[in-house]
Order: sequence, then C-alpha cells, then structure tokens
Amino acid sequence: MNNDIWLVAGIGAGVVSIAASLLYYAWVAGQDPGGEKAARIALWIREGASTYLKLLYTTLLVVAVILGLVIAVVFSGDSTRPLHGIFTALAFGFGSFCSALAGWLGMSIAVRANVRTATACSRSIGAGFTVAFKAGAVMGLAMVGVAVLGMSLIYLLWHDVEIILGFSFGASSLALLAKAGGGIFTKTADIAADLVGKVEIGIPEDDPRNPAVIADNVGDNVGDVAGMGADIFDSYVAATVAAMLLGASFAATGGAQYVVLPLILCILGIASSIIGLQFVKVGPDGKPGRALNFGTVFSCFVFAILATAFFGGVNWAAGTTVFNWGALIATVAGLGIGVLMGFTTDYFTNDEHNPVREVARVSGSGTGLTIITGFSYGLVSIAPAVVGIVAATLVSYFTAQAFGLPGIYGVGIAAVGMLSLTGIVVSNDAYGPIVDNAKGIAEMSGMDHEVVDRADVLDSAGNTAKAITKGFSISAAALTVLAMFAAYTEVIAKYSGGKGLLLDLQDPLVLSGILLGCIVPPLFSALLMLAVTKNAFAMIAEIRRQFAADPGILAGTSTPDYKTCVAIASSGALLALAFPAALAVLLPLAVGFILGPGGLGGFLGGSIFTGVVFALLMSNAGGLWDNAKKYIESGNCGGPGSEAHKAAVVGDTVGDPFKDTAGPSLNTLITVMSLVASLFAPIIARFHIF
Amino acid sequence: MNNDIWLVAGIGAGVVSIAASLLYYAWVAGQDPGGEKAARIALWIREGASTYLKLLYTTLLVVAVILGLVIAVVFSGDSTRPLHGIFTALAFGFGSFCSALAGWLGMSIAVRANVRTATACSRSIGAGFTVAFKAGAVMGLAMVGVAVLGMSLIYLLWHDVEIILGFSFGASSLALLAKAGGGIFTKTADIAADLVGKVEIGIPEDDPRNPAVIADNVGDNVGDVAGMGADIFDSYVAATVAAMLLGASFAATGGAQYVVLPLILCILGIASSIIGLQFVKVGPDGKPGRALNFGTVFSCFVFAILATAFFGGVNWAAGTTVFNWGALIATVAGLGIGVLMGFTTDYFTNDEHNPVREVARVSGSGTGLTIITGFSYGLVSIAPAVVGIVAATLVSYFTAQAFGLPGIYGVGIAAVGMLSLTGIVVSNDAYGPIVDNAKGIAEMSGMDHEVVDRADVLDSAGNTAKAITKGFSISAAALTVLAMFAAYTEVIAKYSGGKGLLLDLQDPLVLSGILLGCIVPPLFSALLMLAVTKNAFAMIAEIRRQFAADPGILAGTSTPDYKTCVAIASSGALLALAFPAALAVLLPLAVGFILGPGGLGGFLGGSIFTGVVFALLMSNAGGLWDNAKKYIESGNCGGPGSEAHKAAVVGDTVGDPFKDTAGPSLNTLITVMSLVASLFAPIIARFHIF
Repeated sequence: MNNDIWLVAGIGAGVVSIAASLLYYAWVAGQDPGGEKAARIALWIREGASTYLKLLYTTLLVVAVILGLVIAVVFSGDSTRPLHGIFTALAFGFGSFCSALAGWLGMSIAVRANVRTATACSRSIGAGFTVAFKAGAVMGLAMVGVAVLGMSLIYLLWHDVEIILGFSFGASSLALLAKAGGGIFTKTADIAADLVGKVEIGIPEDDPRNPAVIADNVGDNVGDVAGMGADIFDSYVAATVAAMLLGASFAATGGAQYVVLPLILCILGIASSIIGLQFVKVGPDGKPGRALNFGTVFSCFVFAILATAFFGGVNWAAGTTVFNWGALIATVAGLGIGVLMGFTTDYFTNDEHNPVREVARVSGSGTGLTIITGFSYGLVSIAPAVVGIVAATLVSYFTAQAFGLPGIYGVGIAAVGMLSLTGIVVSNDAYGPIVDNAKGIAEMSGMDHEVVDRADVLDSAGNTAKAITKGFSISAAALTVLAMFAAYTEVIAKYSGGKGLLLDLQDPLVLSGILLGCIVPPLFSALLMLAVTKNAFAMIAEIRRQFAADPGILAGTSTPDYKTCVAIASSGALLALAFPAALAVLLPLAVGFILGPGGLGGFLGGSIFTGVVFALLMSNAGGLWDNAKKYIESGNCGGPGSEAHKAAVVGDTVGDPFKDTAGPSLNTLITVMSLVASLFAPIIARFHIF
Repeated sequence: MNNDIWLVAGIGAGVVSIAASLLYYAWVAGQDPGGEKAARIALWIREGASTYLKLLYTTLLVVAVILGLVIAVVFSGDSTRPLHGIFTALAFGFGSFCSALAGWLGMSIAVRANVRTATACSRSIGAGFTVAFKAGAVMGLAMVGVAVLGMSLIYLLWHDVEIILGFSFGASSLALLAKAGGGIFTKTADIAADLVGKVEIGIPEDDPRNPAVIADNVGDNVGDVAGMGADIFDSYVAATVAAMLLGASFAATGGAQYVVLPLILCILGIASSIIGLQFVKVGPDGKPGRALNFGTVFSCFVFAILATAFFGGVNWAAGTTVFNWGALIATVAGLGIGVLMGFTTDYFTNDEHNPVREVARVSGSGTGLTIITGFSYGLVSIAPAVVGIVAATLVSYFTAQAFGLPGIYGVGIAAVGMLSLTGIVVSNDAYGPIVDNAKGIAEMSGMDHEVVDRADVLDSAGNTAKAITKGFSISAAALTVLAMFAAYTEVIAKYSGGKGLLLDLQDPLVLSGILLGCIVPPLFSALLMLAVTKNAFAMIAEIRRQFAADPGILAGTSTPDYKTCVAIASSGALLALAFPAALAVLLPLAVGFILGPGGLGGFLGGSIFTGVVFALLMSNAGGLWDNAKKYIESGNCGGPGSEAHKAAVVGDTVGDPFKDTAGPSLNTLITVMSLVASLFAPIIARFHIF
C-alpha cells in the first residue's frame, strides 16, 4: 500500500475541517448583532483587536523574514541538497502563515460573536451558549484543519521530515509572540484598568468611562483566543512532527508507516472532534459547564472507537507491523491520561473542593495567608500532574516495546494521542473569552439584569473549561517536548556519523546544560511579569492624563480615547517581548555551540523539568486565587466587601499574571527551544567548542 | 608516609576547635547578665528554648533508635562483614549525637549571650558586638570541631568510608528535624504573635503582654541558631564524606591520599577560621557589617595561603600524585565562587540596589504589585547563582582532569573547599539571632533609647550576614549534593559487579525518576508552609483564650502563660514534620526499589534541580520583601503607616515562611535523600523491580 494515500487523506481531512469552520463562521456572523449601543461597544473592541493583530502580524513578518533568511542561508551549505535551505525556509514561512491564519479567523469571529452571544442571551441561556460555542468551534476546527493540511502537503511534496520541522518552527515562532505578547497585553490592561478605575476613582469594572476598558476587553481576546490558540496549534504541530521525526529514524526497519501514523491519528482526531461538536447542546436553561465536559469526554470515546476500528481494519486488510495494538494502546493511554490531568487541575481550582475553600477561609485572617496558602496548594498541584506525565511516559514506552515498536516512538504517539482532540478542546477554550466579553458588553450597554445574569452563567462555565484546558495543554506540552527531545537526539545521532548521543547525568557538560536549562523558565516568567508591571504603569499614567485633560469623560459626556490605551498595551507587549523571545532562540544556540550536543540535550531537559513545574504551579495557583475570590463574592466567608474579600482580590491580582501571562507561555518557550535545537542539530553536531 | 597521621591531625584539630569554642563560651558566660528585669525575660526565653530542645532531642532519640535498628539489621546481611551493620548504626548514632551536641552548645550560649549583648550595648556598639560575635563563634567552632573529630575518629577506627556515610546520615536526620522543625516553630510564633498582637489588639511588636512574644523570641533561636547550625553541619559533613567516598573509589590507583585530602582541607579550614576570628573587631562606634564581611574575606585569603603552603610543602617533602596543583585550584575555585555567590545574593536583598527599591516603589500602587514584583526578582535571582554553580562544577572538573585527577573528584573537592570556612560562616550567622534577641530584650525590659538604637545597628548587620550565609549555603549544598550524587553512582557501580551506572536522560526509567524527583522539593515546601498556617491558627486561638480568661494580661498586671504558646509551637512543629520527614526517607527507597538504581539516580538529580531553584527563589524573594519593608520603614516611599508600608508588610508575611521555613529546609531535604540513596545503594543495586 502506498503511504501517500494517507497524506492525501490528511489534505482531505484538513479541507473538510476548514470547510466546517467556515460554515460555523457564516452561521455565527448571520446572528442578530443586537442594538445600536451594544454594537458600538463591540465595534470598539473589534477595532482594538485589529490594531493589536496588525502590529502582531507586522512584527511576525519582520521576524519571519529574518529567521527565514537565516534558515535559507544556514541550511544551504549541504551540496547534496542544495535547495534544502530554501525549502525549509518556505516551510517555516508557511507554518507561521497557517498559525496566523487560524488565529486571525478565530479572533475575527470572536469579536463578532461576543455581541451576538449577549443578544442571544436575551432569548435564553441555551441560545447564548450555541452562538458562543459555535464561534469557539470556528477557531478549533480552523486550527486543526490548517495544521493537518499543511503538514500533509509539505510531506507529500518533499517526503523529508526535516523540512516539516521548519513548518513547526514557523508555527512556534508565532506562538511565542502571540501567547506571551497576548499575555502581557491582557494583564497590562486589566491591572491598569482596575488600579485607576476601581481603586483610585471608584467606578465599577467594565465601566465605559474608563479609557482602559476597551483595552481590557480586547485583552481577553488577544490573550485567550489568539494567544491560547497559537499555543495549542504549536503543541499540536510539534507533537505530530516530533512523532514523525522519531518515526523517520526507524523507517529503515519499519517502513514509512512510522512516519504517517501520527498524521493518521490527527485525521481520526478531526473526525472525532467534528462528531463530538454535534453533541454539545444546552437546553433553554440548562447547564453549559456539563455540556462542555460532556463534549470532550464523548469525543474521547468516539476517538477510541474510530482508532480501534482503524487499527483493526488496516490489520485485517493488509497486516502491518506499525499499526498494531501497541501503538493503539499508547495513543489511547496518552489521550486518557491527558483528559484525567485536565480534571485533576479542576480539583485544585474548583470551589467545590478543599483548596479553594481553604484559601477563602484563611483570607479572613490576612492577605499574607491568602498568598501563602494559595501558593502552597499551587506547589502541591504539581505532583499529581507530573505523576500523570510519568505514567503516560512509562505506559506508552513499555507497551510500544512489548509490541515490537521502539519505546520512544510510543511516547511520541502518546503525545499525539493526547493532542488528537485539539479541535474540540480549543473550541471549548475559545468559548471562554467570548462569553466573558459578552458579559462585559451586556453590562456596558445596559442590557436587562436577567440577560447579564444569563451571560454570567455562561461565563462561569467558561472558567472551568479554561482550567481543564490548561491542565490538559500543559501535560500535552510536556509529553510533546519529551518526544521532541528524543527527536533532537535522533537528529544529532544521524549527523554525528552514526555515533548515538549519550546524555549521561554524570557528564559535567550534560549536567551543566541541565542546570542552565533549569533557570530559563523562571527567568522567562520573571521577564514577562516585570513587563506587565512596567506597561501597567505606563497605561496608568495615560488614564490619569485623560481624566485630567477632559473632565467630561468621568461625567459621561465625552467618550474616552480608547485607542491610545490599546496602542500602549499593543506596542508595550511586543517591545517587552524582544529580549525574552531572543533568549528563547539564542540561548539554545549558544549552549549548543559552546557545550556541544550533550550540553544542549541537557539544556533542553533542564528547561522541560522546571518549565513543567512552573507552568503547573503558576496556572493552578492563579486559577485557585481567581476562584477563591469568586467564592467569597458569591457570599461565603464574609462575602463581598469583607476583609476576606479584600485579601482575595490581592490574591487574584497576583494570580492574573501567573495564570494568564507567565504560566501558559512556558509551554511555548520550551517548544520553541526544542525546535531550535532540533532544527540546528545538524550544524551543532559538527561545530561546537567543548 | 602513613596517611593515618592526617587522621590523628584531624582529631587534634577537632579538639583544638572544641577547646577554642569552650574558651569563648566561658568568656561570654562571664559577662554582665544585666539588670533584674532583663534577666527575667532572658530566663523565659531560655526556658522556652529548653522546652523545645528537650522535645526535639527526645523525638530525635526515638527516630535515631528506630533508624539505627533498621540500619543494623539491613546491613548485617553481608557474611563477609558481619559487624558492618552494627558499626554503621553506631556511626549513625554518633553523627546525630555530634550534631545535637554542637547545636545544644550553640543554643545554650545564644540564650545567655542575648541579654549580655543588650547589657554590653549600654557601654558601646563595639562592646555589644564582641559579646554577640564571640557567642556566635562558640557555635561555629564547636560545629566544625565535633564534625572533623567525629569523621577522623571513625575513619581511623574502621578505614571504611561506607561507615562514615552512617555518620553523615545521622547528622542529616537531625538536621532535617532541627531545620524544618525550627522553621515551622519560628514562623508559627511570628505570624500568630503579629496577627493577634499587632493587627487585632494593636499592641507593638515584642510587647511582654503578648502571650506569644516569648515563643517568637525562642523561635529566632531554634530556627536560626539550632536549625541553621544543624543544616550547615549537615552540608559540611556530607560534602566531606562525599569527597571521601569518591576518593575511595579511586584509591586503588592513587592511594589513600584521595580519601584523606578532604579531611586535610577541613583541618586547614579550621585553622583559617580560628585565625580569621581574631581579626573581627569593631571600634566603640564602628561598623559591624563591614567587620563581619572582612572576617570572611580575610579567612579566605588565610585559607588560600595555608592551602598553597601545604600543597607546596607536601610535594616538596614527598612528591604526591593527589595533593597536586589541580586539587588546589579546584579547592580555591570552590571557595572563591562560594563567597562570590554570597555577595550575589546580597544584590537581590540589599536595599542599596535596584530590586528592593523597585519593590518598595511599586508597593504604593497595591499589594498585588509588591508580591508580583518581589516574586519576579526572586525568579531572576536564581540565574546568577546557578551560573556560579555551573562555573564551579566545570572549572573544578576540568582543572582536576588536566592535572591527572578524576574530574568528578575535583567537583567533590570544590564542594569541600566551598565549605571549608564553615567555622567562621556559622559564627557570622549565629550572630544574627543573638543580636535580634538582644534588641527584643532591650525593648521589652525598657532599656535606654540609646541602647536600643545600638542593638538595632548590630541587628541590621546581622541581616546582611544572614543573607550572605544563605546564598553561600545553598550554593555549597548544591555542589555537595552533586558530589554526593556522583558518590551514589560509584557505590552502585561497585555493587553491580563492575558494571558502571549509566544515567541516560533518554532512558525512560531515568527520565521518570527525574520528573518524580522534581516534584519533591515543591511538595515538601508546600507541606511545611501549610503546617505553619495550621499551627499559627492553633496558637491564635490560645492567645485569644488567654486574653479573654484574664483581662489582667492586657492591663499589664498579670503575666501571660508564655509556656503554653511555646508548647503549642514545639509540638505542632514536630508533629507536622512527621509526614514530610517520612517522605524524605521513604520516597528515595520506594523509587529505588521500584524504578531501580537508574530511576533513583534520576530521582536524586531531579530533586537537586528543583531543590536548588526553589531554595534560591524562596530565600531571596523572602529576604527581598523583608528588606523592602525595612526600607519603607526607614522613611522611603511614604514611610511607616503609608499604603506602601501596608503592602510591604504583606510581602514580608509571605516572605517569612519562604525564607525561614521552606527555602532553607530544601538543602537538608536533598542532602537527606542523597544520603539515603547512597547508604542503601548496595541493597538497591541487588533488589529492584524494573
């Protein structure tokens, strides 16, 4: 059987997924955009988002052209493959473009769906839910569609996994800018709007008199839609490419099936997501949270059935060595543990369980205790997630081995399995900021109390979905980079004249690499959080200036200059990124050229170790503080306005950059560093000092 | 030349050091104990400390007897060495005893020196300084004395490094209880005293009407004298034993000189410390901080000169392969980088530099920013320290190799070099809580304003000394556990029938071990911090009960029941330790018996990686918040009572368990786990599941 048929199938699945995404887009865009006042606010948010996106994509274009030229030149040195550099650079550009396209589609519908969701809420919760959820699905399906289409097309053209590595690196470069930049943007606006609005002047949240209020609402979109989308796109592509790269190194013994299996799993995932999406429904006054979770779990079962049918069918028809039960078990184990991890995160951040309630309880005795207790539970939350990652690694490794496949290939396949449902997971995730915005618009445009309440119900469900997605995406990223790490060593081995790469902890270069790698995630997190504080102060100065220059703003007779605040957040975020983003690309190269392939291997390992630990700590502690505040606001432990509430608000302010800026950017950081290492491995294998 | 001569010299140096310690003890005890009121307060503190110590040593005795029996039984299985188990158990008991003895001496003089320092301050700053500093030296010299005496004696008796491993494990077991228990005790009392006293009732700090005030002062002693002392004792012994173990594995080629060199470096360190101590002097109104730093730096030079003279002399007299210039350079590099690391810590925690000032500045805009900014600088502070550890590792490894010694032995020697000045470093450190207590006693007993001010000058110098010691001790612990880690692999190799142990990052068992190891330090930190919060609530209830039961306490007519508060802090701390301490011993065994020697090696590695990262983060962020608060209190950024000050107080409350409970306990945790692994390596090498 010619394996190219699977590549053609991949292109087909991509096209179907994109088509489904566009159908949802058309449906959502056709909904009632609501009254004049709501539409005007939505327009401001849309224009703000567009300002930021233009700047982001311009920055990306500059970065991509520079990196593309570097790649084209550096990889043209091999006389046996004179065009390899050009092809890799093209794949790199195409990867950036695909990621940007999916992000742009998602943003474009999100800033239209928010007002339409608010308007639909005037009918029922179920109506509002459908608009928001279908808008989320636009992003989810577009992403998996362009990813699978892109990877299949490139492999079909060149049959060279190293060129697909360029595609993945392109997606990652955008992800780093979009995720970390969006994270800085959103928290800059959030903190500045709160500090001047709520604390200094005493106007409520989401008050249209606040010049930063539009920037704050734009922030939800750029951080949680564009940023998170680019991040998961990046993990999704990286996991698939890592498994393909590992597969290629075993292709000599097992045939090209090793290389195409990851793409086949993606196709099955797209099918499962599309089927699962059809079953997510909420009655007029139903429970949106349960519907979202049901969709995810149901898609898992669909995937398990489709995968079993596929492996069974192929084996019955042709009998293959690669598509065997070991690969199936590894895939399903990865997926199952991924979902389990998502629900574990929920334990630490849901107010029905002990951690959130305990933090709310101690808050009455002082802000210090809120921080210490929340941080401590964040530290504890690392343990179960890492145990899950270890379980997924060991199960997939030894199962694959037991069925005659290379163990490490099993780990790669488990990562792809974990991410196979990206379509529906991203749909759920993008739903969150849309309903958050809908609630803001309903409040700002003075809709009925009942409508605001319905939007609030939708919003709470969004928070839980977001927490689960985060737990899921960190675990998936960890497994992905473990596979990418193995792929790196295979590339090094290939270019070191057959000598394998040994990464012995007792080798001082490897050990030094690990220790250096360990400091990068904390350093990167710190740089992002310090950037938030710095930009927030710049925006605070601008808000104060506007209030002073035109007293009509506070009186409600003049419209504030929203655009300047959006511009400050946009340019501040991307400027602040220059140094940390350069670190992400240059540090692995510096370590590689100085300490050699072993040192760089250690460096990647070290960055994975502390990257996973800090990502879990920050995301979970942040989510926990957020929900402890909400728990108190709903009348517990003294309720709104109490000392406990004040303490919990501080906890939430600390948690915001933890969970929305630093924590989730670490995934992208470690993926980018792993990709840089793998991409440049052929050169580092030849040139290094130690 | 018979190498036993060096062991006899070690015993001699130990005796000299202990004798010097006792001379200082007698001198300090002979100073004026001051007026009746001050003496009464000092007596309460002394009694409180004694209550805690009795409970600590009783707990230790129970733990030591159980562990001793386990060791005696487990290691008696080898028919070629029937008494090996008994000997190891004896060494283990002796190690605990030595550490306890040094801690008891240090505490015993500290609770006498506090009131004598306060009294001497009525004469001059210089007079107060001399009393406090000499009292600190009692602890410093006693510690290095009993350590070197113990190690030399045991090696002289049995000439078996594996038995000395028992000694080291004994010291570590006490250290874990003393350091983590003391850390929980001190912050329980501190938080409870502040929350009820300052916040609820509105009485000042160190007010004798507060039932928790004595517990708070006892806490300074048990945390910073007994705890920190046991911790550094543990690192000091572990570093020496690790280098001896490594030496033993090369002894076949290089002779026993490999084994005794670490002890010789300890002897040179004792001599340098004693000489250095003589040069620490402060004029009547001089600068105590400068004097402390001068003593440390001066001792470094003395050590460098003595070591050069020794290596030169021995080579001139006999010509040896081990005592060569490579070993000298590795030693001095370790020491130099250790001191440099101490001063780097100072940058992040001293109010003369940007981080502390920036945190103080943003505090005016909200507590959230205080926490985020301080935490971010804590994250940044990890980087230079780890780069230093990497530099020390690479320099010592490759220098040793260039001079024909095994590279890893160079790393072991560098760790010993870094810790060689433990005598004077501990002296400086123990000085801190003594002057802190002196200030408290001066205030509580109503001494002159001038006397309190002088005590305050001494106290500020103590804080800087403490910050430097912490930076120093974390770096030293990191290098120590790296050496201990290498020692573990040597023991495994020895008992695996000559097969070396390969710790390849690509091996799924090793990788799983690393990931599991990574979660232990954060989990351990969280358990300790949650214990602090829980115990503080118990003590708060007791304080409120006392105020309610006897209104005379607040009126100042009755004396509060200080003892019950001390008892709550004591038993609470040790009870809370049971689970985390058991984890520290049982987790390495569980991982070893399940995942095997490779998995356990990875586990140790992982715990070192995140252990170092979190220890640096928590210690430095905690120190930074503490000093940002003090910076504001001295009139900057709004001064005392401002919004900035309130925010900074919250920062300090968060920082307290970071820097005094969780952060510094991690050193001991990773040392204990490394020692458990090395001690049980012969058994794990034979019995494991994977």
